[in-house]
Amino acid sequence: MSTYGTLFRVTTYGESHCASVGAIIDGCPPGLELSAQDVQVQLTRRRPGQSNLTTPRNEKDQVHIQSGIEQGVTLGTPIGLLVKNEDQRPHDYSETDLYPRPSHADYTYLLKYGIKASSGGGRSSARETIGRVAAGAIAEKYLKQVYGIEIVAFVSSVGKIHLPYTNATTSDQDSDDIDDAVSSEYLRLLSTITREEVDKHPTRCPDSEVAERMTQRIIRAKDAQDSIGGTVTCVIRNVPGGLGEPVFDKFEAKLGHAMLSIPATKAFEIGSGFRGTEVPGSKHNDPFVAREGGGLSTKTNWSGGVQGGITNSEIIYFRIGFKSPATISQAQETAQYDGTAGTLAARGRHDPCVVPRAVPIVEAMAAIVVMDQLLIQNARKTAASLLPPVTTLPPTMVLPPGAK
Amino acid sequence: MSTYGTLFRVTTYGESHCASVGAIIDGCPPGLELSAQDVQVQLTRRRPGQSNLTTPRNEKDQVHIQSGIEQGVTLGTPIGLLVKNEDQRPHDYSETDLYPRPSHADYTYLLKYGIKASSGGGRSSARETIGRVAAGAIAEKYLKQVYGIEIVAFVSSVGKIHLPYTNATTSDQDSDDIDDAVSSEYLRLLSTITREEVDKHPTRCPDSEVAERMTQRIIRAKDAQDSIGGTVTCVIRNVPGGLGEPVFDKFEAKLGHAMLSIPATKAFEIGSGFRGTEVPGSKHNDPFVAREGGGLSTKTNWSGGVQGGITNSEIIYFRIGFKSPATISQAQETAQYDGTAGTLAARGRHDPCVVPRAVPIVEAMAAIVVMDQLLIQNARKTAASLLPPVTTLPPTMVLPPGAK
Amino acid sequence: MSTYGTLFRVTTYGESHCASVGAIIDGCPPGLELSAQDVQVQLTRRRPGQSNLTTPRNEKDQVHIQSGIEQGVTLGTPIGLLVKNEDQRPHDYSETDLYPRPSHADYTYLLKYGIKASSGGGRSSARETIGRVAAGAIAEKYLKQVYGIEIVAFVSSVGKIHLPYTNATTSDQDSDDIDDAVSSEYLRLLSTITREEVDKHPTRCPDSEVAERMTQRIIRAKDAQDSIGGTVTCVIRNVPGGLGEPVFDKFEAKLGHAMLSIPATKAFEIGSGFRGTEVPGSKHNDPFVAREGGGLSTKTNWSGGVQGGITNSEIIYFRIGFKSPATISQAQETAQYDGTAGTLAARGRHDPCVVPRAVPIVEAMAAIVVMDQLLIQNARKTAASLLPPVTTLPPTMVLPPGAK
Amino acid sequence: MSTYGTLFRVTTYGESHCASVGAIIDGCPPGLELSAQDVQVQLTRRRPGQSNLTTPRNEKDQVHIQSGIEQGVTLGTPIGLLVKNEDQRPHDYSETDLYPRPSHADYTYLLKYGIKASSGGGRSSARETIGRVAAGAIAEKYLKQVYGIEIVAFVSSVGKIHLPYTNATTSDQDSDDIDDAVSSEYLRLLSTITREEVDKHPTRCPDSEVAERMTQRIIRAKDAQDSIGGTVTCVIRNVPGGLGEPVFDKFEAKLGHAMLSIPATKAFEIGSGFRGTEVPGSKHNDPFVAREGGGLSTKTNWSGGVQGGITNSEIIYFRIGFKSPATISQAQETAQYDGTAGTLAARGRHDPCVVPRAVPIVEAMAAIVVMDQLLIQNARKTAASLLPPVTTLPPTMVLPPGAK
Repeated sequence: MSTYGTLFRVTTYGESHCASVGAIIDGCPPGLELSAQDVQVQLTRRRPGQSNLTTPRNEKDQVHIQSGIEQGVTLGTPIGLLVKNEDQRPHDYSETDLYPRPSHADYTYLLKYGIKASSGGGRSSARETIGRVAAGAIAEKYLKQVYGIEIVAFVSSVGKIHLPYTNATTSDQDSDDIDDAVSSEYLRLLSTITREEVDKHPTRCPDSEVAERMTQRIIRAKDAQDSIGGTVTCVIRNVPGGLGEPVFDKFEAKLGHAMLSIPATKAFEIGSGFRGTEVPGSKHNDPFVAREGGGLSTKTNWSGGVQGGITNSEIIYFRIGFKSPATISQAQETAQYDGTAGTLAARGRHDPCVVPRAVPIVEAMAAIVVMDQLLIQNARKTAASLLPPVTTLPPTMVLPPGAK
Repeated sequence: MSTYGTLFRVTTYGESHCASVGAIIDGCPPGLELSAQDVQVQLTRRRPGQSNLTTPRNEKDQVHIQSGIEQGVTLGTPIGLLVKNEDQRPHDYSETDLYPRPSHADYTYLLKYGIKASSGGGRSSARETIGRVAAGAIAEKYLKQVYGIEIVAFVSSVGKIHLPYTNATTSDQDSDDIDDAVSSEYLRLLSTITREEVDKHPTRCPDSEVAERMTQRIIRAKDAQDSIGGTVTCVIRNVPGGLGEPVFDKFEAKLGHAMLSIPATKAFEIGSGFRGTEVPGSKHNDPFVAREGGGLSTKTNWSGGVQGGITNSEIIYFRIGFKSPATISQAQETAQYDGTAGTLAARGRHDPCVVPRAVPIVEAMAAIVVMDQLLIQNARKTAASLLPPVTTLPPTMVLPPGAK
Repeated sequence: MSTYGTLFRVTTYGESHCASVGAIIDGCPPGLELSAQDVQVQLTRRRPGQSNLTTPRNEKDQVHIQSGIEQGVTLGTPIGLLVKNEDQRPHDYSETDLYPRPSHADYTYLLKYGIKASSGGGRSSARETIGRVAAGAIAEKYLKQVYGIEIVAFVSSVGKIHLPYTNATTSDQDSDDIDDAVSSEYLRLLSTITREEVDKHPTRCPDSEVAERMTQRIIRAKDAQDSIGGTVTCVIRNVPGGLGEPVFDKFEAKLGHAMLSIPATKAFEIGSGFRGTEVPGSKHNDPFVAREGGGLSTKTNWSGGVQGGITNSEIIYFRIGFKSPATISQAQETAQYDGTAGTLAARGRHDPCVVPRAVPIVEAMAAIVVMDQLLIQNARKTAASLLPPVTTLPPTMVLPPGAK
Repeated sequence: MSTYGTLFRVTTYGESHCASVGAIIDGCPPGLELSAQDVQVQLTRRRPGQSNLTTPRNEKDQVHIQSGIEQGVTLGTPIGLLVKNEDQRPHDYSETDLYPRPSHADYTYLLKYGIKASSGGGRSSARETIGRVAAGAIAEKYLKQVYGIEIVAFVSSVGKIHLPYTNATTSDQDSDDIDDAVSSEYLRLLSTITREEVDKHPTRCPDSEVAERMTQRIIRAKDAQDSIGGTVTCVIRNVPGGLGEPVFDKFEAKLGHAMLSIPATKAFEIGSGFRGTEVPGSKHNDPFVAREGGGLSTKTNWSGGVQGGITNSEIIYFRIGFKSPATISQAQETAQYDGTAGTLAARGRHDPCVVPRAVPIVEAMAAIVVMDQLLIQNARKTAASLLPPVTTLPPTMVLPPGAK
């Protein structure tokens, strides 16, 4: 439904053309310094009209915080917030009154509810994500301040144009193994990349040469009244080990759930992902080494920071596939609601490619998942820490001192 | 945690070497004819020792139903069930007392709980999935009987050996588009494949030639004391439209969550998935056509049966990536819990490749997700159907008669 | 936390002196005709300043619906709504800056969050209930239209002044039994009472003579700068049998939970309640009689419409105890936050007795509980109804035709 | 449904005459020393056949722990456990095959599920509470060891025979106020009573004179083939302040929910409860005094340890009403399932009064609620404690040092 999270929870409301969209964020730790500006920064990165690559729909997307904060500090009570829908133009969508847009949510919303918003996609609109981005910005403020957690997403592909992440090629047909799941160059990029570097280019791809090719691909789609998909990769650094709840709420299961709830997503992989399935265990396994200051580190981190569904304090990275936007201006042969065949040429405003604007949404959902899992694990850890140490167990059954 | 589902819920317990593993299945519709044998069939497909491709650990995995069924009919009350752990052999694992197995859950369980089962992976053991398979078998019985829903999973790749699902190749570097996300041959396979066909070959790949190559690949891994990963593809047929709860519980989000909670999974994609992101919208969009008997159907179904997070009554299909098993007999250079570098050579029993045995687990989780979403949507649909028809809305805002 | 419900859910935000209070109502059936006025009616019954018995704080409490409704019909998507806090006056509370108000939430909020709203009670303010009342009004609209469900709460006591509900007296010390748990006169009142009758008197007690005595008692409290508690009784008519989820979510457990979440409540009883514990089983048991039109009815309904945690289609009635309001203008000997003993004389606006205004809040929570349980039971019932009838069971194990 | 709790969760299965009843307890802190005996103690206090006041059904109720514990220490993973149903005798209930027992769950289970267990009450059987008692014993072990929390329930009334808790009488018709909600003698009893004292008498009433009168009342009911109800009062000592989640999950709301989910309960009150509503605010308010060692204490604790839905570190006490058992051997004029009027004389085994055996069940549910709320609050508190102290707020908005 419209609520996500156990201890850190976000509930959203609003469709594209109603009075406002908004959210209630419940479970924010009390005592966190928080201003509207902390939230606005990410909303602004998400909003349309940022470059000629995105929809011309130009909303200001100014957040109005209603509750939960006093004198610049969170009270621990729910934070209500909203963003007004200023630029509504419901009449742009008259064509869709007759035709369900192919691969869009028009038809399935009708199947589900028996009724749909007159103005099109309703809750499937990207405007719904405003509440998520706001919640994520709040979680992120806490995570950064207390744990130094850094969350950076970037565009890793547009159409066939990929930021390379491996040295091996899948066309190596002679071997029946693949040696390299994720290259060390790529892992280095993941360990240093910043949001500033990502935002240098409108595509939000951190490699300027690849970004330029992506730009050309998007412009070609736009010129052809067409659209193109892509992938977003996200890295989360400095997450403590131990997050994720066996067995149904493994860390990657919660992360996958959150990411696949973002509109237009169709795929998710963590660490070496699908490619890693082709690498034999002897190479894919990630050996341990002593970590400076205590505990263990791993060598390759092809696991993506999660083993057995639990974070291991390495860098977490994952990739999400976004399909090509369903709404295109190009004429499409399809059928009306009543089955009559015909041609639909959508008007209205739409992005030829959503991945650049998806970047802050992915970061937001990542922050929400980490925050919620952290609170749950803190509950357990605090509870366990208050028990006297167990002295009767063999030493290999208990965590050695210094691990974290 | 150890509970999954809202209205149809499964809660599991048990690690690899305790007295038993089991589950409580809550929310099963009353009045369903159900016998232990209905559950046993899928447990037997899951259990080890089925062929020379799987672990020699030979458990009978006999289910004992404790409650919720009387005279062969479900009462609507929780169904408790358990399977005894007969073949325990805890001493096999002495090596792992010193070394956390690379890419396994030994170390992360310690990070999380500060303590772990002496016998190794604990809850990360594949034996935990017994409860899921049992729950799935119950859900499936209902779904098949009432809706004719068919759930069939199969092995779609082992290492680099793939059952082909597209006619285009990714090496086509001249074009900057991909035309074919999923071939019509493959979609035909998905629309007809049966569990019997899948079980014909021990690898559970329905193409005998590809299956044979997969077998060789697995045997090569086994002989080398190594392991290899793979993918499982699953198809669900005859699911009604309208399932999936906007916005956080979109159908693919719940499905992804469920699949990524299975041990060793690292990737999930639905419909055209990652590959579909490379196809322009004009080609990727799935036009509507009138469906015989009313409502609309789609032409390509590259959406995989889900649009806007809601099922559209087309075939649902998705793919899950399983990494190469972490436990291998081959010596591995790694570190002990205390950081001392050394060599680990695991003994014990382990599968060189888990995907053949993962097939019934994937089917089970799929059944659980569909069952839960169906109950939720039925609650809404029943509620809405009792209201008088709304006559004041423009006809394009409401579902036309005959759609389903 | 701030979310209640499984399929019909309300999430609220807002404290007494922030920008607004509001709620997101998720899971409302689509296709329900709904206007702001439907919600406003109950908000107006709840708002302060209605008579000289309530606080002079005079807010208009105008609801602003943000989403989820189009052209006067619900879309099935979340309904966001808010009410602005117009009359804030934060400086009224300067005394409480030094003293936690005795029996109020000032001190416990600090214990919980380590921080509290400067303006006093924060989320413990009665203004938080605005979101509940709005959600309840929406649920009620549906319940009334589809099932003819009627929910009427009234004031059943103020201080020691009770609307009599039994013919026996507790002072009958000679017998060691009590014969009469709830009188048939009272049950008749419960079966016919309307909201209009309740609202005839400002105290919302339907017996004008008792109401008058209650009024005098409240005025006496007011004149003495004191306060007085009371009870609210609520009746729900025409609820279908079968609601309530064994075992932890029994109907009365959910109802009790909902009622005890209303500010100032300390007690809850259903049917014959505490008094019923004194009546022997042979008299307390509620025999069955054939119901006209099929099924069974009960004779006394001292069960209050619920047996075994499940509704039996009789009238549901229950009583809630509200303590005397903690905020009084009279001087109180107490201690400051730092432990310094002293005298607190609260200023500000406060009700000498909350029960008249609690009436619509109780009705709202009742509507939310019934709506949520109805949706859950409908999910099961629809699922079961699609199975073929079980013919192998003895007839006494299955529901006879005609029962409902 | 059959699961209770957020972070500490119990899920139960089993009806009265199936193979076993049992539970899965999830979220137990790891590292707790725990044996089957810890659980057995409370199961034995709950089991039938303890005295001539309870049912002769003589089950051993031996617990079998399946998982989650190794070498006497909890692993943090789910604890599966079961108790076999050894004494089944399904044929005792032949009369109930024709008649739904008045005030029992036979009829409502049929309304809900359309089918019911042949052997009578199914899940409404008191045997279902075995899983709760086991879970409670585990929670209690932790709470006692870490926080010194003591939970003691006792029988406070049987029929009209009450353990007195106030000095005032309700028959004081001259005054329109009541001065004394809970006497200081009673509060003293609550602050010292132990389980050993409670168990001294078979009725589990700690006052031997009152206990004796209660015994006579129960025997009289037994001899008359009748039954009688009563109340159980429970005290929880040493609970930290700050537990309970505003606004829907206030501490008393969760507690009330848990208690009203116990079979046969019809009423719940905390602190001064219903009686407190008759005491004016000026007397009912509980002034603060400096607590030795820092923080504040309250003078009367008529609040029952909870203010604003949050614990204030005073003693928590509450009372639960249990109706007279519905199953009596005496003939009852009632109707059969098909509406035919007739006479039912139940055979089988049943308690004339359930409150003595309800004592450990009440304690168990109390322990579960405290444990769950403690884990949730610990998550918040730990999170907040990691933030830098806020220095910009007025001192009255933040918790003074030393409070707890």
